[in-house]
Formats: sequence, structure tokens, C-alpha cells
Amino acid sequence: MPSSGNLFSGLPDGRLPDETFETLADGPGLRIELIVSTGQTTPEGEWLDQEQSEWVVLLRGSARLLIEGEETERSLKPGDWLMLPAHCRHRVTWTSEDEPAVWLAVHFSRP
Amino acid sequence: MPSSGNLFSGLPDGRLPDETFETLADGPGLRIELIVSTGQTTPEGEWLDQEQSEWVVLLRGSARLLIEGEETERSLKPGDWLMLPAHCRHRVTWTSEDEPAVWLAVHFSRP
Repeated sequence: MPSSGNLFSGLPDGRLPDETFETLADGPGLRIELIVSTGQTTPEGEWLDQEQSEWVVLLRGSARLLIEGEETERSLKPGDWLMLPAHCRHRVTWTSEDEPAVWLAVHFSRP
Repeated sequence: MPSSGNLFSGLPDGRLPDETFETLADGPGLRIELIVSTGQTTPEGEWLDQEQSEWVVLLRGSARLLIEGEETERSLKPGDWLMLPAHCRHRVTWTSEDEPAVWLAVHFSRP
């Protein structure tokens, strides 16, 4: 029987102390992850720098993201996706708190 | 510069003659695909039987899907996801036409 679920069931009603991360499926060199942010951001002065490539889409809420080398942040609305190659340094500079920011991320390895 | 887009831009206003398929990203043994249905279904008597595993989520619209061996169709609303292992035979029995059914599929190989 195939596993199943709903991305938007169980969303928090207000701000949580931390982002939540849930692995929905995985395979060799692959992980599909649901991330829920309620105001959290990448700590000041830090960058996210990942070994794997990440395709990520914002599905609910809103967020801002800065990619190293770009002058301005990108404002993300539902449906906006980004393909972040491995080691493409980036930081999340803002996430909506009133409406949780729901991200779906596909982490994968590629040569 | 990372590639980017919006899943919901350019959705059709009414029924299209065929489903549309767009590859958003890929890697070794991996393909992330946007599928838009406007009333199309799997032809009567046929099953979808895929070499790769498929994690799929419905993001807009509504749909019904039958998995071989299950007695009743599953009704899907936005956010509903399914992990379909390779060769898990299934058919799409209905998709909404008034509001396009927007699917995000991650096709991947696993041993």
C-alpha cells in the first residue's frame, strides 16, 4: 500500500519555537522534505552551504531568500521554486509568522 | 545563477486538449516534473505502470486516482501526496476541468 499524507494537515496555528522538518520519501542520494517555518531565519552572518543540490518550492506563506553574490533578496510567494546547486550559498532572511511558510525541498546528489 | 520559476504561472484558463508536462529539474535517476491536467484521465482499461518510483503531490484543483488492488478510488485535494513505488499500477480516473489539476511529481530510481 503506497504511503500518503497531506502537506498542509497539522500546520501550526502560530509561531513554533523552531522550524519543523519531515522526511516524506527518500531513495539513494535523494530526500524529499517538508519544512515549516514560522518566522525563523538563517542566523545573522551564517550561510546555508549544502553538499547536495536542492530543488525547493514555497507552497504557503511568504519568505525572503538571499543568494550569495546577488545584490537583493528574492521575495518568494506560493509556487515560487528555486534550483540551488550544491554549495550555492544562501540564507533565508525572512519567513512569514502569521501564515506558516511551507517549503517542499528535494535534496539530491548530482555529479 | 540558480534557475527559478513559479509553478502556478501560466496555468490555462480552461480545458486544454492534452495534459502538459514540464521538467523543472533533473539529476542522475531523478526528474522533477510539473503536470497540469484539465479533465484528462488515464484511458479506460489502461494502467500507469512505471519503471521508476514516483512521489507525487496534487497542489491545485482536485483529482481521483485508483490504485490496483484497492476497492475504491482515492479523492485528492491540494496537498495530498502519494508515494508510488515502481510498478505500482494506478490510473487517474478524474481530474477537475474548471480548476486545472496541478501535480508535482518526483520520479526516481531506487533499488
